[in-house]
Amino acid sequence: MRYKLYYWPTIQGRGEFVRLALEQAGAAYTDIARRSERSGMGVPAMLRLMENVKNPSPSFAPPFLQAGDMVIGQTANILLFLGPRCGLVPEDEASRLWAHQLQLTITDLITEVHDTHHPVASGLYYKDQKPEALRRAQDFTSARLPKFLDYFETIHARNPHSDSYTIGDALTYVDLSLFQIIAGLRYAFPKTMHRLAADIPRLITLHQLVATQPRIAKYLASSRRIAFNRQGIFRHYPELDQ
Amino acid sequence: MRYKLYYWPTIQGRGEFVRLALEQAGAAYTDIARRSERSGMGVPAMLRLMENVKNPSPSFAPPFLQAGDMVIGQTANILLFLGPRCGLVPEDEASRLWAHQLQLTITDLITEVHDTHHPVASGLYYKDQKPEALRRAQDFTSARLPKFLDYFETIHARNPHSDSYTIGDALTYVDLSLFQIIAGLRYAFPKTMHRLAADIPRLITLHQLVATQPRIAKYLASSRRIAFNRQGIFRHYPELDQ
Repeated sequence: MRYKLYYWPTIQGRGEFVRLALEQAGAAYTDIARRSERSGMGVPAMLRLMENVKNPSPSFAPPFLQAGDMVIGQTANILLFLGPRCGLVPEDEASRLWAHQLQLTITDLITEVHDTHHPVASGLYYKDQKPEALRRAQDFTSARLPKFLDYFETIHARNPHSDSYTIGDALTYVDLSLFQIIAGLRYAFPKTMHRLAADIPRLITLHQLVATQPRIAKYLASSRRIAFNRQGIFRHYPELDQ
Repeated sequence: MRYKLYYWPTIQGRGEFVRLALEQAGAAYTDIARRSERSGMGVPAMLRLMENVKNPSPSFAPPFLQAGDMVIGQTANILLFLGPRCGLVPEDEASRLWAHQLQLTITDLITEVHDTHHPVASGLYYKDQKPEALRRAQDFTSARLPKFLDYFETIHARNPHSDSYTIGDALTYVDLSLFQIIAGLRYAFPKTMHRLAADIPRLITLHQLVATQPRIAKYLASSRRIAFNRQGIFRHYPELDQ
């Protein structure tokens, strides 16, 4: 089966967590909004599906994934669906719920990253909420981010089945997502991440382990990997990285 | 099996979505942090489980649910686990993923409700972030909340299987959660909800339908239902409700 991924075409954003899973699995997928409008795809195809009044289960926002007759929205939910099909999560229910729990905690962290530059309104520009962003980013880099990273470092250290992976004894979508978190944070908050690096040796090593998986390495070097930029969730504004 | 719920004892908060599911199902459960410390429970018992360095899968934050040997965190994940066991979700995978997707969208809304009074830092008091809260709440009540409510109203209207319920032809945990959303919003933002009421007749009717389910009605009238207050997620600050 060929999956169809629907997400904004110019940013990594939340869609990137799905892209990484599909890439690591070597799954066949089409990144619909990145294809040409002439071919009937592009952003208009994504909006048509979202706004189709006959669609009984529209998503509130991208990303969403089409798999045969099913359309699944919410990033963590998509990974819950793909995990077993892509061999990116253990078999047993307890491990799957645990993986999903961690993915939801990553989701919470991503929202807090986003809100460092958009603490007032996602519909306003950054420049129109900069004083609020400075205060929020100050709390994020000094309190919230260290708390989240310490949590994930601890989880990784306590995995009874592996010294390399977060869950069980093989790579899961949670490892891929933690890679993306570290990559994004390093882009957006280089000074903060330099300061915190010594506290999270396991996450740093995990980032490297994922980056050197053959399929991921190939993906990262390809044009399919969109560069970080100032439209995405991870944005580098030096004044927010103190 | 008797479930053990761990959540802050003085607020509805995120734990309430789990309480409502357990109550509607007539499940046996102990709300651990609300029981006495003398009996070995209370908040200390919750903190012990969170901070136990031998716990391989600690939650980042409450609520979490103990079910036999399993401990499951993240509200939507707990409902994903409880749904089939409590008869609060249809059997088929597509419906379960759809229910979970909606629950995750409700989770997003709850975060935005929280951030109306805490837009800068959850570790600061409301009074220390009031100017930011006024701006964020203005955007929330005029743009974000109408968008979320319109989405859920639309979803409800498009359910091909029922005119009463959100998913399938029977009550699910998503209906319970939407009840809680309407109840909380009416407490926190009475003026805004009065203004928006005419646009969401289905959600208003659903709120009443859930409130009059025999077990829910009994629960709401009991001392187990904590009153809304200014420590929870839904808080009434008149200046934020314009």
